[in-house]
Amino acid sequence: MDSALSCREHLPREEALQILRDRFAPLPARPVPLEQASGEVLAEEVVGARNVPHYPAAAVDGYALASEDTAQASPARPVLLSRDRFCWVNTGGAVPPSCDAVVMVEDTSEGPDGLVVVRATPRGQNVRPVGEDVLAGQVLARPGDPVTPALQALLLCAGVREIPALPKPRVLFIPTGDEILSVEEWFRSGATPPPGTVVESNSLLLRGLFRGWGMDLHVHPLVPDDPVQIRQALDEGAESYDVVLLGAGSAKGKRDHSASVLREGGGLLFRWLLMKPGRPAMGGAWKGKPVLVLPGFPMSTAVVAWGLVHPFLEHLASSSVPSGEELCSSLGCGEPQECRLLVPLSSAQGMEDWVRLKCARIRDQVVAWPLSTGASSLFALAECDALGVLPRETLELPKGSPLSFYTLKRMDLDRTVLFQGSDDPAFQRLASRVRLRGAQVAIRTVGSLGGLAALARGEAHLAACHLLDPQTGIYNDSFLAQFDPQRQWWRRRLYYREQGLIVPSGNPLGLRTIRDLAARGIRLANRQPGAGTRVLLDHLLGREGIPPAGLEGYDIQCVSHMEAANRVASGQADVTLGIRAAAEALGLDFISLAVEPFEIVGPREFEGHPALEALMSCLEDPAWRLQIEALGGYRWSL
Amino acid sequence: MDSALSCREHLPREEALQILRDRFAPLPARPVPLEQASGEVLAEEVVGARNVPHYPAAAVDGYALASEDTAQASPARPVLLSRDRFCWVNTGGAVPPSCDAVVMVEDTSEGPDGLVVVRATPRGQNVRPVGEDVLAGQVLARPGDPVTPALQALLLCAGVREIPALPKPRVLFIPTGDEILSVEEWFRSGATPPPGTVVESNSLLLRGLFRGWGMDLHVHPLVPDDPVQIRQALDEGAESYDVVLLGAGSAKGKRDHSASVLREGGGLLFRWLLMKPGRPAMGGAWKGKPVLVLPGFPMSTAVVAWGLVHPFLEHLASSSVPSGEELCSSLGCGEPQECRLLVPLSSAQGMEDWVRLKCARIRDQVVAWPLSTGASSLFALAECDALGVLPRETLELPKGSPLSFYTLKRMDLDRTVLFQGSDDPAFQRLASRVRLRGAQVAIRTVGSLGGLAALARGEAHLAACHLLDPQTGIYNDSFLAQFDPQRQWWRRRLYYREQGLIVPSGNPLGLRTIRDLAARGIRLANRQPGAGTRVLLDHLLGREGIPPAGLEGYDIQCVSHMEAANRVASGQADVTLGIRAAAEALGLDFISLAVEPFEIVGPREFEGHPALEALMSCLEDPAWRLQIEALGGYRWSL
Repeated sequence: MDSALSCREHLPREEALQILRDRFAPLPARPVPLEQASGEVLAEEVVGARNVPHYPAAAVDGYALASEDTAQASPARPVLLSRDRFCWVNTGGAVPPSCDAVVMVEDTSEGPDGLVVVRATPRGQNVRPVGEDVLAGQVLARPGDPVTPALQALLLCAGVREIPALPKPRVLFIPTGDEILSVEEWFRSGATPPPGTVVESNSLLLRGLFRGWGMDLHVHPLVPDDPVQIRQALDEGAESYDVVLLGAGSAKGKRDHSASVLREGGGLLFRWLLMKPGRPAMGGAWKGKPVLVLPGFPMSTAVVAWGLVHPFLEHLASSSVPSGEELCSSLGCGEPQECRLLVPLSSAQGMEDWVRLKCARIRDQVVAWPLSTGASSLFALAECDALGVLPRETLELPKGSPLSFYTLKRMDLDRTVLFQGSDDPAFQRLASRVRLRGAQVAIRTVGSLGGLAALARGEAHLAACHLLDPQTGIYNDSFLAQFDPQRQWWRRRLYYREQGLIVPSGNPLGLRTIRDLAARGIRLANRQPGAGTRVLLDHLLGREGIPPAGLEGYDIQCVSHMEAANRVASGQADVTLGIRAAAEALGLDFISLAVEPFEIVGPREFEGHPALEALMSCLEDPAWRLQIEALGGYRWSL
Repeated sequence: MDSALSCREHLPREEALQILRDRFAPLPARPVPLEQASGEVLAEEVVGARNVPHYPAAAVDGYALASEDTAQASPARPVLLSRDRFCWVNTGGAVPPSCDAVVMVEDTSEGPDGLVVVRATPRGQNVRPVGEDVLAGQVLARPGDPVTPALQALLLCAGVREIPALPKPRVLFIPTGDEILSVEEWFRSGATPPPGTVVESNSLLLRGLFRGWGMDLHVHPLVPDDPVQIRQALDEGAESYDVVLLGAGSAKGKRDHSASVLREGGGLLFRWLLMKPGRPAMGGAWKGKPVLVLPGFPMSTAVVAWGLVHPFLEHLASSSVPSGEELCSSLGCGEPQECRLLVPLSSAQGMEDWVRLKCARIRDQVVAWPLSTGASSLFALAECDALGVLPRETLELPKGSPLSFYTLKRMDLDRTVLFQGSDDPAFQRLASRVRLRGAQVAIRTVGSLGGLAALARGEAHLAACHLLDPQTGIYNDSFLAQFDPQRQWWRRRLYYREQGLIVPSGNPLGLRTIRDLAARGIRLANRQPGAGTRVLLDHLLGREGIPPAGLEGYDIQCVSHMEAANRVASGQADVTLGIRAAAEALGLDFISLAVEPFEIVGPREFEGHPALEALMSCLEDPAWRLQIEALGGYRWSL
């Protein structure tokens, strides 16, 4: 066993993988009964055990006969065969040994005296000879071939009972952590589980990934943060499995025991990978079996599963994944594709950086933008279309940089429009309806001004705007004139929505008007610069002569109505300006201050885009109208 | 119910599909418990039921505290917090209500009097607010989204118990046919099952296809060709399933009852599709449920499953597959790709023609050639890389025509070389070894002369040659000089092999020399023009002054040694010229006549191709050498 001294620290992922490959040899191939072999991969070549067909078979419905009997037959001189010189065969039926040809039923007539044949039928005609499709001993498939449905059926016909399959490592996942609730406990805990608890979601995540890889994952019952119980679970795993995955406990917290347990009881081969997320991953051995420790955040778990676990399992399975294509295989995607970054991206220095991307195509250019980079964000992982894996030497990628990405989801970029603009729950719902029509709206929330600027730069198909001009008191017109001086955009009003003060239920501080925000001690939650709602707030404050700088929380930048309202709901703020729907969603009080038109705009150039057409047709959808009326604060006319 | 009169006949596949779509409405969506939802597709949008996190969570390991307590802290003026003013939190742990920030452990030291903090910790620092990742009520996923592992984990964390999934039609397959053996009977029947019997392989094929579509297929026990029992099985199917597939019985044979049963008892909607294979498919209704009849040949079954069954199931499941992409979805492939035909192709007039293709890439050009077009060939279906679906109006495609194809297998064309040339069992084995090194040799058997000509036309990476020059009595040299006058090809001898007369075991006709072939009544099996073995035969005959035209069977063109030897084994011929390995594989007698060098050759331009390098390294592989020595008749030197 390795001593702690041989443990490599702070190493690139590829080196960690090489350490594992060097240490643990591929598993032996195994025979699999043919009927269970669907989806397996052949370890060796397979030859036919029987001829197919194994008898001379009729290729048509007709009469089997001896060709010499009909050698002289023609329409002018039909030949009459007596009853013992022919027999009926269905397509696929056996041609008797005394016969060597089959005449089609159209060239005969059967009567009481026998069969009248009007055409010469040469030897072998309409007969599939023995072994026509497969000869016993013929190579039918080769190492590395997947057992497709067709191959499986072929091998059955060729009399092959079992196949030599690539090994499938048996893998055990041991989730650990005192703070973890089982799925049952999680749902039993009602609307709000105890603070500090987290559901054991990584089993589900990993099981899904394994399923996608065509493998099973066995999950051990949850183990608390107790070295004795962790050791016991590792013993069980090493006994019955080829690989053990240990969940969490790999960081430096007071309950992180994985490193010490492995170091003392088996061998720690490496820890601290130069990747982000996934840095706290580690690898070791326990009673001769490989153990990989996965960091607890789901994104970290997924990244280590894709980047380390699956390539290692493919090594154990002797899969011949070409070098450099390991990630395509892990992610189940084709070759990486190229896009341009819609925004600048800073990469973690010296770390391989796994970035979650959303993608769209504008004209012929695929563009992408990163979602949250935090390892704790599971939403970003579920929401992203693709992954960028930035090499360790990457530092700053300016806007417009080329970036190669691995697709995680089937993207239909022909039927996707990119919306940049204002946050709005009803528009979010509209995007869901568009999906029902086979198209997609990719939404990037950048505020109304950000959306118009993106349109002007040619970086979006679509934006929204609800911008009040303080000079004129009129919404949108002046802003559109500014961003689209050539008048090349269409515009369409979707609805009106109520804006107002969102305060805790019961309005404990008794706020009534915009002037009340200036009262001492009132904690505001604001929106990001460029948001129409922030423009409205500035207008309302300015009309009352209230300098924004004096307001506590004016600099807090929430990027959505719901995020700002949630600050109020959770007690982090006393008030925010936002739409009624956000207040109603969270059971907060709402003091109406304005009704604003919500318009969508876009360049005429993209009119006729299938996703835009789908969106327009959804506007008339009564189900959607009902749905957003139920959100509260939306109306169709002033 | 439809009367027989409303049955459409001889119609395009798309019209048959439309008839089914018009007649049978999509099934309702269904709730699926989240834990079983992996791989399902959402029918409606899903919103979060809980905030994630549902409590303010520490983003680091450290001490939770009230930010106001540390407002003045700095390295120069540390602040001491008493024991009741802080508490330890692990990453992800709950920050208590009295605290609003977490200081990293590095910025503190804990002593007997309390915690010394050397850095001001602003409100919210290192705290993930409630709902940071997901807000209750937030749209988390939309209709049409697949439930990926990440989405499944996200929904679990967001407290979602079940999801609205697209329907999955329950499908029953009823195999029929008196001639069909169950898998158990098939394997019990020893080396050669009774003539005229066929194994029930379509269940396995269809189950594999359904598995690939993420669906289950239930299989009814085998039903004989008996209308009463077929009706009974249809009753059972209509009772418990959404769709019934009936296997075979759709042609015009004496045992084909499907049409009459459907016409009398339910409704026949269409029969005879304008497609090849698959023509005898039919569709109808039985007690209100859709019934599709699949023709019995496996290739026909597969084609109808891809072209009709799966698109119809997607209709029932309300899948939003974009029009025109149904086949990509059925075949599980991306958009069709473009290739050039290596040979001319005649398409069946007026029929949509499904062609099985092998593919390779030469320089930058993807080329493809069709495998057998017979519906009875299961080998061609298992062996092909891709499908071409030629529209009904296609007639003749000259060599070099562009053709779009759907990939059926992951092709690694960067690591594939195209071999055109001589048939040789040892070379077949070599191709299997190459697979073990992650590369591939696509073999197209065209004879030695055909291979050299293909090389000269730039249509292959590699050919083989064992051609005797009758003038000089020397192998290969003069042919290579003719096809490669500029000497731009490399050549390498792989081995020598014995050629001779292959005769039935015991040599009943007592054949000894080439002269014996001229005896009256001797039935020869010959090879195709351009095959080195045919060149050798001509040379041997010429040396003896025997005119080929006088030999019975001289015009029979077998394309491989095994096919020719199999003619002898099955009694269709008395003798063939071929290699010893073919005789030994089939237990035939062999009279040695020549030992010939087997060389491979190729343009220097392709030296360094990864698949060629893999092939060269396999030549030294002792396992391969042992394997081919065991075939018989191969030797390494004269």
